[in-house]
Formats: sequence, structure tokens, C-alpha cells
Amino acid sequence: MVQFVGVENAIKLISSIGVEPFLTGLADYIDEDFRRWEQFEKSPRIASHSRDGVIELMPASDGVTYSFKYVNGHPQNPLDGRQTVTAFGVLANVATGYPDFVSEMTLMTALRTAATSAVAARYLARPDAKVMAIIGQGAQSEFQALAFKAILGITRLQVFDIDPAASEKFARNMAGYDLEITVADSAQSAVIGADIVTTITADKKRSVILSDNMVGSGMHINAVGGDCPGKTELHADILKRGKVFVELPEQTRIEGEIQQMPEDFPVTELWRVITGLDMGRTGSSDITIFDSVGFATEDFSVLRYLRDKVQETEHFIDLDLLAEPTDPRDLFGLIGARQQHPDRLSA
Amino acid sequence: MVQFVGVENAIKLISSIGVEPFLTGLADYIDEDFRRWEQFEKSPRIASHSRDGVIELMPASDGVTYSFKYVNGHPQNPLDGRQTVTAFGVLANVATGYPDFVSEMTLMTALRTAATSAVAARYLARPDAKVMAIIGQGAQSEFQALAFKAILGITRLQVFDIDPAASEKFARNMAGYDLEITVADSAQSAVIGADIVTTITADKKRSVILSDNMVGSGMHINAVGGDCPGKTELHADILKRGKVFVELPEQTRIEGEIQQMPEDFPVTELWRVITGLDMGRTGSSDITIFDSVGFATEDFSVLRYLRDKVQETEHFIDLDLLAEPTDPRDLFGLIGARQQHPDRLSA
Repeated sequence: MVQFVGVENAIKLISSIGVEPFLTGLADYIDEDFRRWEQFEKSPRIASHSRDGVIELMPASDGVTYSFKYVNGHPQNPLDGRQTVTAFGVLANVATGYPDFVSEMTLMTALRTAATSAVAARYLARPDAKVMAIIGQGAQSEFQALAFKAILGITRLQVFDIDPAASEKFARNMAGYDLEITVADSAQSAVIGADIVTTITADKKRSVILSDNMVGSGMHINAVGGDCPGKTELHADILKRGKVFVELPEQTRIEGEIQQMPEDFPVTELWRVITGLDMGRTGSSDITIFDSVGFATEDFSVLRYLRDKVQETEHFIDLDLLAEPTDPRDLFGLIGARQQHPDRLSA
Repeated sequence: MVQFVGVENAIKLISSIGVEPFLTGLADYIDEDFRRWEQFEKSPRIASHSRDGVIELMPASDGVTYSFKYVNGHPQNPLDGRQTVTAFGVLANVATGYPDFVSEMTLMTALRTAATSAVAARYLARPDAKVMAIIGQGAQSEFQALAFKAILGITRLQVFDIDPAASEKFARNMAGYDLEITVADSAQSAVIGADIVTTITADKKRSVILSDNMVGSGMHINAVGGDCPGKTELHADILKRGKVFVELPEQTRIEGEIQQMPEDFPVTELWRVITGLDMGRTGSSDITIFDSVGFATEDFSVLRYLRDKVQETEHFIDLDLLAEPTDPRDLFGLIGARQQHPDRLSA
């Protein structure tokens, strides 16, 4: 049997643990897997592009556990009330090849993206950071807010979205989470006094959500929304002024903010900072930029975390995804046993 | 909601339809999809190799429907009572990127492989073929036997396996299916008088299951077992004497019998024979060889067939695989609604 965590069960699990403790625990798994980055088989994702969007399969393996995520990206989906991005994921045993865990990953992707951002900021932002600006109050914004509160100790948010209804939704959802929230009337005013700026807008084009003059000394930029070819949020001058940190350089050069830069534009790999091989922030005036695009090992981490967490609960069901005849050579016996009189059973 | 057909429901569906009518209907879908071969996006499979085996993702898309199959191959699995190959598959809507159908595919892979073999033989074997030899009575052998009976009108089977217990299992499973069956004491004697020879052995090495002297004029060879690098069943001389038909040449040159041959070894694509663009059998003395390795479009076909068939029944369950908030931007609302008092709910 394969364990399955659907949306309803994922929500029950997250609610029973609490969103913030869930994110904190997840951050530990993500941190741990970044520390053993070199153990992972890092395959490129396989994308199937169509007029309306893309469907991708993202595999990863640490030699013991194999994972993959199915994820789509369809920018027009919200016009019909659908999610731009939906996802599900699978864990399998490398030694037997048997899948053993399946989960919804639309929620899990938002959670792992937020937790990864906060892990990166733990190494890159100023240790005394308390104020974060969030530009864009789409589907992932609340997850970012709570990850930075729980993992980094952010206490104040200054938010802006070109659609005021999105900021209202955000403020409504964050009520009761003990965060001081200001809705700003422009991105410019949102970033004033911010230690960290998270850009997480949805527009699929080359935008300038942040221009160079908005970025002050010592700022950490968590650039999440620029995550596919043709979609960026930062002015190139910011990338030149700051120090850029990435997950997998090959992937980020295609999908991240640095797609705007020459191919040899210098970047530092996040795992090398986490393991101490490379420097992150060198002082309180550095401008640091996490050019987040999302990588398969982060899906691996969240699936592993979710599987561990769900074992203590009843928040899963069993699926008979795998045919398991008593004699492996007798697959047909599974059917044949019911087929003593095939003529009578035929339609 | 996403429809899920597990092993139990797959067995119920196959049993309610009957294995042979199921295979016949499936062959029509496979034939139909081979006829529109050029419409498909044919991506290479992505393989993750490990000491004990391989895990592969096999995507396909016709621009309207996207499919992929997860499949493993672990030759040592049967030593622990596990299947060498297990699989599951997914269909998704290309326009929205939403997956809408998930199924077990261990049984479905055996069924689609057998139906594809029979479809190929319909174009390549002599029209009056009645006798088939089957070398290897492993997990897929019964499916091959019934596909060739239902789709081609084979009435007599001459079978051989190096393990007599496997042949006994085969004969037991086929009892009541109105086939004349002889268990031979060697591959040599099994092929005597056969119009068609199916090789479907499991040994992962360069074997010579069929040598040139065993292949008579007019024979059609359905070479199924040689399906990955390092695993072949036919002597190279047979390939030189006969005419070789393949699914996707790029893939078959790596995985099929023709991995033994030079890179420019001439082959004919099956879809071109089915659509009449190329000749198949030209006369009753031709030796024809279907070098079957299994291709993603065949998984697409069987998933499409299964989904159509299951709609008329109750042999599926609904999975809440996709998070669908009323407002697409309010993904967090799914959790937030349960989180009015996060402190009280926190573990």
C-alpha cells in the first residue's frame, strides 16, 4: 500500500501542528538536505510546453529515497477560477523502485518555497532583521510572511500589491498571527525601512518591481517571483550592486533574475554558504539577493518531512497503487482468479 | 477531484469487461494513436539509475492530453517477492495543467505491451497465422497469449521456460481460455511449426533465446524481452535476415534488440506501416521482427482507454489531489480558516 495525503488531510495535519511550527520543522529538513547537497542526483526538470502553460516533472534522489513532483504553470488559470500552479509529489524507495508515498503539493510547494526563503535569509539577512516588505500578495505571500516570522523573528510587515483587494486578503488572513502589518500605497513606500524585501508578484513578464534606488545598504532581497524564462522582478543594476545567491546555477541562469545577466555573472551557491564553504553576508552594509526559483531537492525535503510527520497521525489514506501478486511471475493470477468463466463475464 | 483506479478497481473493471474484450478495445486505441503519431510530443524518458535498478518517468502529450508513467525496473526484486516492474500513470489536461486521472499501471503496462504486440503482428505477421510460440512464461506471458488470441486469432500456443514451474503456472492460468497449449522441453522444439514467436524472458543480459537456425521462412518474431541496454534475446544474424520494425528508432537503438547492430542499421517505424506510408510484410516468406521496447504513447493510449471505460462504472475513487481555493490567490485561506486561534492549536 502507498500512503496518500490529500488536500483535506494536509490541511488537518498543518492545522494540528500549527502553520508556524510546521514551517520551523520543515526549515530544519530543508537545511539538512542543503547540507548534503552533493549526495543528490540533480536531474534537470522535464518540461512539456503548450500554448497555455507548462507541465513539469522534477525528480531528485539521494540514493536511498527518490522523489518527483508534478507541477504545472498556467498563468491564465485564475481567469477561470483555477490555480496558476498545482502540484503533487511522490516518494519512492530507490532499492526496490516501489513508490510508497503520494501527496498533494500545491500547499506543500508554497510551504517549502517560504521555508527555503527563510532558511536562505537565516544565512544572508542581517541577524537583527525585524521588518520585511512583501511586494505581491498572491497565493504564496502569507506563507512567506509566517516563515519569516517563525524562522527569522520578523515582527513587522510592509506590504504592497497593485490590486488593493489582494493586500486586504493578506491582512485578513494574517490577523491573529501577531504581526504588525502596514498596507503601503506603493512599492516605494513599502520598502522604506525594510531589512528584508520579498518580491513575489505573478506577472509573467520582465518587470521592474524593485529599482536600484529602492534598495538600501544592508538590505536582503528575497526574489521569489522571477522564476521562469521571461519573468523577472529586479532591475539588473541591483544584481550588479549586490551579491547573488542561488540554488542550482544552471537552472537559475535560465529561470531566475540572473537570466538578465551574462552567462558568467558571478553567483554563490546557497548550499556552499550553509555548509560554510563560501561566505554569505560579510557585514551589515552588504546587499544580499536570494534569487529563488525552487529546486527539486526542496520538494524532496518537504515530502520527507510530511511523510515523517504524518506517521504519528491518521491524516492519510492507503492507496492500492501497486499490484502485488503472491508470486511475482503470476501477475495474471490477479485477474485470472476472477476469470474462471470468462465467457460468462464478458460484456 | 482526480479519479483514481487502484489495483482492486482495475481488476474489477477488467473482469467485468473480460480480458479479451478489454485487450481488443485497447488495441483499437493503440492503433488509433499510432495513426496520429506525428501529433505527439515525444520526450525522452528520464531515468534515475541506482545499484539495484532504475526509476523512470515517461511523459507524452498530444497537445490536448498529457500523460506520464512512473515505472521501475529492479531485476532482483522477485528474490524478495516483489515485482521487477511496477508502474502507475497520470493523465492531465494540457490547457489547464490540472491532472485528472491516476491509475495503477503494473497491470496496464502488461496489457498495453501485449495489445501493442498484437497490433504490430496484425500488420506484420502472415494473415493466416494460428500457432504462436512463447519463450518465457513470466509475468507478462498470459497477457501476450490472450492478446494474440483475441486480436489475431491465434488458436495454438507452444511454450517454453527454463523453469518448468513457470510454464505450469502459465498453463494453469490459461485453462478455460480455449487455447490449445503444448509445454515444450526446449525453445528449439517450441518454435517448430510456429507462425509467430514471442520472446519474453526476464534475464538481464545478452542472451540468445532465438538463434538463426530456429527462425523459419515467413515467421513473425515478437521480441519483447530485450528492452533495455545490455538485455537482448535474438542472435544478430536473425536481425540481418529479417526486416525490423520499431516504435521510436532513437529509443530502440539504445534499448531494443538492435542495440547489437550498427547505428545506421535499417529499421522501419511501426506507425509508418500502420498508416500505409511504408511496407510491412511483402510476402509469405518474409521474416518480420517487431523489436518491442514499449513507448510512452502506448501508456497514453491505455490510460485514455481506461479512463473512458471506467466512466461507465463505479470502479474508481475520487482523490483530493488538488487544492482549489474559491479565490485562486487565497491558497492560505484553506488553512487560515482553521487557524483562528493558532496558539491554541499549536502542538
